[in-house]
Amino acid sequence: MRNIKLTLAYDGTAYHGFQRQINAIGIQQVLEDKLAKIVGHTFRIHMAGRTDSGVHAYGQVVNFKTTSTIPVDRIAIASRSLLPYDIVVLDAEEVPDSFDAQYSAQSKIYVYKIYQHTVPNPFLRNLVWTIPQTLDVSAMEEAAQIIIGTHDFSAFRASGGASVSPIRTIMAVECQLQDRILELSFWGNGFLYHMVRNITGTLVNVGLGKTSLEKFKTIFEGRDRKKAGATAPAHGLYLKEVRY
Amino acid sequence: MRNIKLTLAYDGTAYHGFQRQINAIGIQQVLEDKLAKIVGHTFRIHMAGRTDSGVHAYGQVVNFKTTSTIPVDRIAIASRSLLPYDIVVLDAEEVPDSFDAQYSAQSKIYVYKIYQHTVPNPFLRNLVWTIPQTLDVSAMEEAAQIIIGTHDFSAFRASGGASVSPIRTIMAVECQLQDRILELSFWGNGFLYHMVRNITGTLVNVGLGKTSLEKFKTIFEGRDRKKAGATAPAHGLYLKEVRY
Repeated sequence: MRNIKLTLAYDGTAYHGFQRQINAIGIQQVLEDKLAKIVGHTFRIHMAGRTDSGVHAYGQVVNFKTTSTIPVDRIAIASRSLLPYDIVVLDAEEVPDSFDAQYSAQSKIYVYKIYQHTVPNPFLRNLVWTIPQTLDVSAMEEAAQIIIGTHDFSAFRASGGASVSPIRTIMAVECQLQDRILELSFWGNGFLYHMVRNITGTLVNVGLGKTSLEKFKTIFEGRDRKKAGATAPAHGLYLKEVRY
Repeated sequence: MRNIKLTLAYDGTAYHGFQRQINAIGIQQVLEDKLAKIVGHTFRIHMAGRTDSGVHAYGQVVNFKTTSTIPVDRIAIASRSLLPYDIVVLDAEEVPDSFDAQYSAQSKIYVYKIYQHTVPNPFLRNLVWTIPQTLDVSAMEEAAQIIIGTHDFSAFRASGGASVSPIRTIMAVECQLQDRILELSFWGNGFLYHMVRNITGTLVNVGLGKTSLEKFKTIFEGRDRKKAGATAPAHGLYLKEVRY
């Protein structure tokens, strides 16, 4: 059995998240159904990170085992005529049998995009969170430094995740503003359920002047989800990269 | 009766063009139905330029007459909670009774976007024409100069348009390449049916080296649509601006 690793980009707007579900179409199902036609048998993919309904990816990673002898560079090309245009296989490579998209991952980068404009942009409607106010980016940057390092992230954890431990390590947070789009990027060894969206919602409160730096620190250290800001909407979030 | 001018941006993906139709949803119908709730009566809008199914706009202009006394700046704001997110009223202003979005227009700018990449981008799938080859932009720029001025554009005219005369004046054509997206912008006093898409299809043949500069000139001067390149797909086209 060969082990195939795929790197994917997708617009998550039309899907009920990544995972296969019973009553709704997930990206996993589309991939498994279409790629089965290329390799000639059914299979189950393993994904690096689950993305929720409406969440996008620039670099989701999955792997699957196959008996097919199709050359690996044909998989990406063949997939383009089978997959819908909102899911693209960027790259396919053969990896050692021990590689697992989820368990072999060392770290991930998520990006959250906020569009600051009083007039919404119809072309960005599913791709950013639009906020009419101007955010104080330097205050947000300062607050973001507080979460860097190894901490208990319970304050930003939604119920419903599968993880036991709330301890995660954030290596870096960056804030970049260009053409009215603020990109917050979070590089960490792992993320709890809704963690990026909950951090973003609370950072936006800092950017709006609703939450002081001191308050942000208290919320984070208090480990109580109910004290933090609202969960930022799914459609501003992107799984950018998975590092192995 | 007050005369109201609206400037609109829209993502045309979900609509069967701008014009009201019997068996499909046009942008006109959505606008008329939703804005009627704001002004309190039904009305018909006049549009600057019809856009086909899948064609987008950054600056479509329409006008309509109303008996409503609602302050004009309330119209754009009120529209945002009524219109779907893919249609946005950028601006509303009261104009003299004689203003007509179509007949008062002096010129229009259309932009055509071409994405040059071997890997399609899922976020741009409805917003650009993706071409895997690299285009020779300077050859396209040279060919584009040939159509500047007042000419018979029959070579680039599709059947089905309402205009009698095939004579139009093109003031400028610009080619700008940024982040692998080539933007061709066409500023003219008017455009025949499919004219921008037909010129683009033929210019792309020049960029691919399939059509020489001499051949482009012969096609243009021959006024025979059958000799020109294929019509570029609708979803790369934007009505950028209408000038009065």
